[in-house]
Amino acid sequence: MTYCVAMRLNAGLVFLSDSRTNAGMDQISTFRKMTVYEKEGDRVLVLLSAGNLAITQAVKQLLSSETIEGSDGEPCTIWTANSMFDVARIVGSCVRKVHARDADALKRHGIDFNCSLIIGGQIDGETMRLFNVYAAGNFVEAGIDGVCYFQIGESKYGKPVIDRVVTPQTPLQEAAKCALISMDSTLKSNLSVGLPLDLMVYEAGSLKVDKLIHIDESNAYFRMIRTTWGQRLRQVFDSIPEPTWSGEQPDLAAGAPAQPQAMNPLSKISAPNA
Amino acid sequence: MTYCVAMRLNAGLVFLSDSRTNAGMDQISTFRKMTVYEKEGDRVLVLLSAGNLAITQAVKQLLSSETIEGSDGEPCTIWTANSMFDVARIVGSCVRKVHARDADALKRHGIDFNCSLIIGGQIDGETMRLFNVYAAGNFVEAGIDGVCYFQIGESKYGKPVIDRVVTPQTPLQEAAKCALISMDSTLKSNLSVGLPLDLMVYEAGSLKVDKLIHIDESNAYFRMIRTTWGQRLRQVFDSIPEPTWSGEQPDLAAGAPAQPQAMNPLSKISAPNA
Repeated sequence: MTYCVAMRLNAGLVFLSDSRTNAGMDQISTFRKMTVYEKEGDRVLVLLSAGNLAITQAVKQLLSSETIEGSDGEPCTIWTANSMFDVARIVGSCVRKVHARDADALKRHGIDFNCSLIIGGQIDGETMRLFNVYAAGNFVEAGIDGVCYFQIGESKYGKPVIDRVVTPQTPLQEAAKCALISMDSTLKSNLSVGLPLDLMVYEAGSLKVDKLIHIDESNAYFRMIRTTWGQRLRQVFDSIPEPTWSGEQPDLAAGAPAQPQAMNPLSKISAPNA
Repeated sequence: MTYCVAMRLNAGLVFLSDSRTNAGMDQISTFRKMTVYEKEGDRVLVLLSAGNLAITQAVKQLLSSETIEGSDGEPCTIWTANSMFDVARIVGSCVRKVHARDADALKRHGIDFNCSLIIGGQIDGETMRLFNVYAAGNFVEAGIDGVCYFQIGESKYGKPVIDRVVTPQTPLQEAAKCALISMDSTLKSNLSVGLPLDLMVYEAGSLKVDKLIHIDESNAYFRMIRTTWGQRLRQVFDSIPEPTWSGEQPDLAAGAPAQPQAMNPLSKISAPNA
């Protein structure tokens, strides 16, 4: 499996991916799930991929040269598109081409066409944008009114901490820290997600790649996160009072409602008379 | 969906379940997912259920009267079985009966036979035991050598905090607190899991039900958990240094390995020459 997360903040974009790929427990490999495209001063695009590796590699292979009719009616590629919306359409178009080529053969082997992609970045003249492209080639955009992040792959373990911390106003380094903690929770609970990681932090308007880093076991900052977060979480856990049942505060039983509720308290089932 | 968790500790057992059931977003109801069976001084059994509500209700309907040939060759029910192992077999037998009755009809409507159950408790003369019964009626036991808890339903959001805190040595009230925090993380990130909750804490050897509680919005202890955990998690988050990129500590870039690694650092793809 995979865990990738991307955030669209007012200050910029954060992308983080793991690199574990498995086809069964005895075929575990390391493959990059982040691809960064840069034309300095003009555009920075970041692609994250999850799902069947053969599919996502085929999509990436097509992506550099795929041409569609852009929203302005002119042919465009990811290097010439005028908008991130057109870039997301190009990614969707590649997914559909791979689907047309491979889906039937996969189906005959009982394999779903499983592929989920995140594409984000900025093109000169436009604001930063972030899209989640589905296996059908359609897509949704983050951060217009609602949630400002996307996750793909094993997303659930690392979701609670993001939900508690990240808003569009979160500063860029704080968001990067949160992404790494979210990854740490995922690594802790799921074997199919593994180091090394790729982290890219993009500052709004910069139109260049300058904070792109590969994180492995030797990375001092991530090692600090792994140790410190677990320890302090445990301290917080210990600092919260334990429930009592005896009428002292905090008392679980003390919350019993004064008014009858729609649901009756749970009653136990007693043994039938012998 | 559902979230249920059960822990088998040296000091006793902890069971926690939510009560939200949905068939689509516009059919949300409240149904109990915990059932407690007690014959004081002889046995306490707790059943938690997740999956298709029609299936799990049918299983519960059968459970009180289902009779199998016990491990000693005599017929037994959940009220007369000599071991928790036989109780788990009885639960499995009920699941198989419901499967025989309903699975074909469900399949014709494209519905999986989706059902996952946890059964745990203690029978006089035996130690406490905890089983996870699958849709095929087979089951596994917790806490012999390996992991000491089971989760069913929407289990991933609440898994990291359990993995960081709970071992067989964890005291009972501390484990109950951890289960409630795990539930809080799940409630925070997944709409399909909802209050009220049912919590049962069983002391090893007691063979009676005395800590069984229904928790709704008005429960003072759970309200304290919901507020405090989120706030303190946020404080811990703020207390961890943010990454720097400039050579200061903690420096993300400072972790760059001195020796060449199996994988090269991620390089970006630059625009082709026009």
